[in-house]
Amino acid sequence: MEGQGGSESEPTRIMVAVNESSIKGYPHASISSRGAFEWTLEKIVRDRTTGFKLLILHVQVPDEDGFDDIDSIYASPGDFQEIKDRDKKRGLHLLEYFVEKCHRIGVSCEAWLKKGDAKEVICHEVRRVEPDLLVVGCRGLGPFQRVFVGTVSEFCQKHAECPVITIKRKADEMPQDPVDD
Amino acid sequence: MEGQGGSESEPTRIMVAVNESSIKGYPHASISSRGAFEWTLEKIVRDRTTGFKLLILHVQVPDEDGFDDIDSIYASPGDFQEIKDRDKKRGLHLLEYFVEKCHRIGVSCEAWLKKGDAKEVICHEVRRVEPDLLVVGCRGLGPFQRVFVGTVSEFCQKHAECPVITIKRKADEMPQDPVDD
Repeated sequence: MEGQGGSESEPTRIMVAVNESSIKGYPHASISSRGAFEWTLEKIVRDRTTGFKLLILHVQVPDEDGFDDIDSIYASPGDFQEIKDRDKKRGLHLLEYFVEKCHRIGVSCEAWLKKGDAKEVICHEVRRVEPDLLVVGCRGLGPFQRVFVGTVSEFCQKHAECPVITIKRKADEMPQDPVDD
Repeated sequence: MEGQGGSESEPTRIMVAVNESSIKGYPHASISSRGAFEWTLEKIVRDRTTGFKLLILHVQVPDEDGFDDIDSIYASPGDFQEIKDRDKKRGLHLLEYFVEKCHRIGVSCEAWLKKGDAKEVICHEVRRVEPDLLVVGCRGLGPFQRVFVGTVSEFCQKHAECPVITIKRKADEMPQDPVDD
């Protein structure tokens, strides 16, 4: 193996795991997701859009959202359906942000939504999809903060069956409370 | 930041930490070093040699080598000098292997030798040189084996001040004893 992929060869498939901001308000990509995505484009893909394919995965934690504004009144099975639909819409909205950026730049991509425990699902999807590389953002918390928050990136570093890059948030992008993202 | 580096922009600088094989015999690159290097060329650099610069670092552990064939007779200060010279030659020989590969492919590179504790020196050099990415090979040992061997890659994952990719040895490249490399 000489290790030199020509432009004719298979593209390098990079999975980027993205999530929503934990700061309340209109749904948008987290700071660390955007950082990981932009780092990948700037430092790896560069201007060679044909040599790469981005695989954008968003894992939604079930039943975590949707409680702010529905006021906890469930009168019919349809109320639950409504929450599920809204969750899905939020997820698709998030993926759309990344897919649109890829499209604008001209790098091919796929994006999909899963439900479950983010770290487990990401590692499961790595086994299934077999990317060349997994990129995950992380908040770069100190050890004390990490204990309470748990980090998806550390779990993936250990368990994902492909090389993993963790991209830490930049110091100047840190929100007031570093556990926010 | 749109995250799209053109071919006019600064190259992505990738530091690759390499080491010698621990298997006795003629000095050559370890399996995991070669794996990490070749992975970087194949999956990241691909055919775009101008967009990247490889920074090849080899850290030599002082006084670990050179005792096989000198038979422990030190008659003059010159004997010690001879060991140091030979260590340095081995190190340069190793770097030459990687520099030659880069040259053949046409990707620009720099290579240098340091002495000290590999994990500390690598992180120190990352601070000094500020690469965009650090690539380290690792043996992919189980937790039990790791306790006795210690892993440079885990330390770098935690402490290096840049994104880090760890490339595990492939299963079919494993030597008889997995702690060898």
